[in-house]
Amino acid sequence: MLSAAKTKNISIVLYKPKYAGNVGSIARAAKNMGINNVTVVGNADFDREEMQQRSTHLAADVLDSIQYLVSLEEALGGFNYVVGTTARLGKARGPFIAPRAAARDIADISQKNKVALLFGPEDTGLANEELRLCHAVVTIPTSREFTSLNLSHAVMILCYEIFIASSAATTSAAATPKLALSSELEGMYGQIKTLLADIEFLNPENPDYWMMHLRRFFARSGLLSREVKIIRGICRQLEWSVHHKKP
Amino acid sequence: MLSAAKTKNISIVLYKPKYAGNVGSIARAAKNMGINNVTVVGNADFDREEMQQRSTHLAADVLDSIQYLVSLEEALGGFNYVVGTTARLGKARGPFIAPRAAARDIADISQKNKVALLFGPEDTGLANEELRLCHAVVTIPTSREFTSLNLSHAVMILCYEIFIASSAATTSAAATPKLALSSELEGMYGQIKTLLADIEFLNPENPDYWMMHLRRFFARSGLLSREVKIIRGICRQLEWSVHHKKP
Repeated sequence: MLSAAKTKNISIVLYKPKYAGNVGSIARAAKNMGINNVTVVGNADFDREEMQQRSTHLAADVLDSIQYLVSLEEALGGFNYVVGTTARLGKARGPFIAPRAAARDIADISQKNKVALLFGPEDTGLANEELRLCHAVVTIPTSREFTSLNLSHAVMILCYEIFIASSAATTSAAATPKLALSSELEGMYGQIKTLLADIEFLNPENPDYWMMHLRRFFARSGLLSREVKIIRGICRQLEWSVHHKKP
Repeated sequence: MLSAAKTKNISIVLYKPKYAGNVGSIARAAKNMGINNVTVVGNADFDREEMQQRSTHLAADVLDSIQYLVSLEEALGGFNYVVGTTARLGKARGPFIAPRAAARDIADISQKNKVALLFGPEDTGLANEELRLCHAVVTIPTSREFTSLNLSHAVMILCYEIFIASSAATTSAAATPKLALSSELEGMYGQIKTLLADIEFLNPENPDYWMMHLRRFFARSGLLSREVKIIRGICRQLEWSVHHKKP
């Protein structure tokens, strides 16, 4: 069975959930699967009794320790790896991975890194705005006839897959090394964007178009802290060179 | 994706469920995973509105077609294969199988047989009396600290595993997208190296030191052909900008 140590680095981050009942159900589902950290962003107005009715008193400790925060950037800043979830398969949003494949990565990465599982509001899910902040995006497969999952069911499926993957004997000796923090990555993206704007590579009317492509493969590569530093060093020197004519 | 034909032989059978909300949640979860048949045994006293609040109107058709029966024997009589579920690992109850293994069997068996997934009441689960009627008994793995799953979460996990197992044969062709050729990558590395030499980022005595670091994470990310083109476009424009003073 799974030891606490294996999942202590994993947190559920709920972005603007609407219903107390769902938050309660999620606390229960998370604890069932050995995850005790829940953060709620952008809404703190939940009826405690309604939450606990669904969490049951056995997961009341998870409710008590929920962190309520205002901004998503603040909530994600301290994580090394952020996994978003979406039901939508719009073209701009990929690449999508299945829960099982994501769970294997998460079980591995979470050995040495803080991992956030990010879920959007019940009605709309995560927007592109929030998905941009994710290293990977999971889509839970469903019947085509009815694709909209209850929020706590989506959380349960992902937590269950992570629990199974973490319990598997295959916890490889070569765990993923320490990844860069979200805040480090965002700093790097900001610097790259400035540089590409300076050399007029980006279309001023839609500067995020190319940035989205860049984010996508940087996210895939799982950048280490020291690699972010190398890239930022290169950007600094490029900035300097662009503004100072070659001798 | 799963065709309706594959799951039409699978039914959820709820034995003495207590709460309308759970029945509603189960209708939704089942339909999400392509299962539209729900039978409720030993309790028919549920508030329709409460059920539908949780099923949403999109699974109202599943609620409408619920069969309410009095005896479990009657309910199970028409099935070829009955899978029970239990959280308890009492000695008398085995052998237990994991949801994943059960799902593979169920996906196979249900091609030509009617299969019931049997769940007990929220508080006590199935008793030995009912488990006796089952061909196989599934136990969903959980953290040892909190083993009691919400009924609809238990249903979701089993339905999800069956959905994945049933889809497996048809979706295994979901292939990795086209990666860049080695020749494309080497062209890109050459161009990056020239640029970094031009801006004096590389040590002329050991130019490959930083290149090695860059190669490492580019290799990890599994660059696509079109991404290589984007990066080479950026390098070209950077080269140009470095050699032409900013106005």
